[in-house]
Amino acid sequence: MSRSISLAVIPGDGIGPEVVAQGLKVLTAVLPQDAKLETKEYDLGAKRWHATGDLLTDEDTAALKTHDAILLGAIGDPSVPSGVLERGLLLKLRFLFDHYVNLRPSRLLPNTATPLAGDPSIDFVVVREGTEGPYTGNGGSLRTGTPAEVATEVSVNTAYGVERVVRDAYERAKARPRKKLTLVHKTNVLVFAGKLWKDTFDRVGKEYPEVTTDYMHVDAATIYMVNDPARFDVIVTDNLFGDIITDLAAAVSGGIGLAASGNVNPTRDFPSMFEPVHGSAPDIAGTGKADPAATIRSVALLLEHLGFTAEAARIEEAVTADVTARDGSPRTTSEIGDAIAARVAG
Amino acid sequence: MSRSISLAVIPGDGIGPEVVAQGLKVLTAVLPQDAKLETKEYDLGAKRWHATGDLLTDEDTAALKTHDAILLGAIGDPSVPSGVLERGLLLKLRFLFDHYVNLRPSRLLPNTATPLAGDPSIDFVVVREGTEGPYTGNGGSLRTGTPAEVATEVSVNTAYGVERVVRDAYERAKARPRKKLTLVHKTNVLVFAGKLWKDTFDRVGKEYPEVTTDYMHVDAATIYMVNDPARFDVIVTDNLFGDIITDLAAAVSGGIGLAASGNVNPTRDFPSMFEPVHGSAPDIAGTGKADPAATIRSVALLLEHLGFTAEAARIEEAVTADVTARDGSPRTTSEIGDAIAARVAG
Ligand SMILES: CC(C)[C@H](C(=O)O)[C@@H](O)C(=O)O
Ligand SMILES: CC(C)[C@H](C(=O)O)[C@@H](O)C(=O)O
Repeated sequence: MSRSISLAVIPGDGIGPEVVAQGLKVLTAVLPQDAKLETKEYDLGAKRWHATGDLLTDEDTAALKTHDAILLGAIGDPSVPSGVLERGLLLKLRFLFDHYVNLRPSRLLPNTATPLAGDPSIDFVVVREGTEGPYTGNGGSLRTGTPAEVATEVSVNTAYGVERVVRDAYERAKARPRKKLTLVHKTNVLVFAGKLWKDTFDRVGKEYPEVTTDYMHVDAATIYMVNDPARFDVIVTDNLFGDIITDLAAAVSGGIGLAASGNVNPTRDFPSMFEPVHGSAPDIAGTGKADPAATIRSVALLLEHLGFTAEAARIEEAVTADVTARDGSPRTTSEIGDAIAARVAG
Repeated sequence: MSRSISLAVIPGDGIGPEVVAQGLKVLTAVLPQDAKLETKEYDLGAKRWHATGDLLTDEDTAALKTHDAILLGAIGDPSVPSGVLERGLLLKLRFLFDHYVNLRPSRLLPNTATPLAGDPSIDFVVVREGTEGPYTGNGGSLRTGTPAEVATEVSVNTAYGVERVVRDAYERAKARPRKKLTLVHKTNVLVFAGKLWKDTFDRVGKEYPEVTTDYMHVDAATIYMVNDPARFDVIVTDNLFGDIITDLAAAVSGGIGLAASGNVNPTRDFPSMFEPVHGSAPDIAGTGKADPAATIRSVALLLEHLGFTAEAARIEEAVTADVTARDGSPRTTSEIGDAIAARVAG
């Protein structure tokens, strides 16, 4: 394992640049002396689109592809029509770089705000498919804007795409103490995609006799997530269901300010991309109110992915300590970044 | 308004027959002397399918169509492959009878179990589209069962279908004290369907200047539902998103044992169908453990729909009183039915 990291940085829109700055601060603090970190910033997002009309050029893609990993802040701005940046940039990167594993861990830290009563124990990870489902951009509209309009969205699911993410989820489940994997889908309604997912899940499961499995409809999964989140260990699910349940998972386990994610290409043919689950929050951009913890934890996922396991663990410990010590006194984005950087260095 | 009701009763599978019996008990108790109730039971569900292979024959449909409304217990049994009863019977009825408004109220009663901390105030209703979206059965599978399989699911959205349900939601919002309507969708990814929904929502909204509106992505909606459910008044959303968020809504507002629903055809061209949100719960069938409250509240929605407004309100009051008085001592399904029937009669 090389002790150098070539990192592409996409600060993006809204609070993106602020939280990314803290992520880099902590990354620099945690890396050992002998590790070399090179970063290159990419100007992508609303500002560039307004200035040049570019979302992501072939040159951008070629340059991004040369890095070991990508750190992304957030994409999205109210001045840009809904979907333009999301589909033309964020999802484009996930698809181009074949980020078929969208990794979203949820762990309820001590002293964190959960809307749930009692003292639930939450420690699970959602493995969300990242390159298929209703996110493919398949669909269209006929007689647009007339009373006879028909608009469609097509969820595309392939054996190739489903099997590789299901297999990844089994591997992750196998490596965890509880070794439990739950498939979340809606097989009773989406019978074609549902059968492909369920059959693949069952078939691949035969290779992992040590992993306990169960199946849950997505609607029921939302119930368990608030009533009994402790039951989950690893969840594997499709792109859209994963989007929905990971926001809920973030909400019950400390809030979206703490939720990290990785868009991972396990084959390493392309750089993986790490980003907080939260969006660009334009309403608080520039106020110093953004919590950089989600980005900092995304840096931990990045380090883990690149083999810096000890450093990743140090960041998670530092964030845990920081969060546990929070007493409600206000700190700026940058102060939180400083505090966590001090803990990882110390 | 006629003071007679011709009711089709589909007890269905699992706990269906048990909870429906309590629904009918309360319905009989609440109706005034001069109202005539005629019920006819239909044998539909797992047992009939196993015995005859029939799901829903033309004769069934023709007969069901003659009634003023349908009361359904639950459909679904583990002995039947996933999707067969759901799509061949339950969804078939919703589609055949053009139940384009799937009405799902959430109201947190005093003394009810919510997984949420604090004392949230919850009183909203979800207007879920019932005849389109990913529920149309469009889709298929190519090279099924091979490593080259492609399985698709198509969400179909029409201006016709979206406008009528959006309009219905505005009418309901206008009739409520807070007059607030939230559109839930995923316009930043599902751009074709999203644009149709959002444009329709905005255009129809011009006719309802008294209604305050907002828009929320479905992932964010799950966060608000656990962090700030009080913000919701009326929600309008598509078939699949509605399925997911109404289970979550039920979970935070007293549990699925209390959640009622109506599959409504507001034009009255077809009978509307009322059913608890919960399923057939085969694991507790026959044990007397099922809470009939969800079905009894569905009977209240049925009465409201048929113009028996005072009787509907009496049932809601009786259920509220029953739930508020619960002290944890176990009662059977039938005892709860008796207690609520006594309250509405008394
Ligand atoms: C911004 C949006 C396109 C994105 C998604 O739906 O994947 C976001 O919600 C997320 O979860 O990363
Ligand atoms: C049983 C299933 C087909 C149904 C649905 O998805 O609509 C149920 O979950 C519901 O919400 O009524």
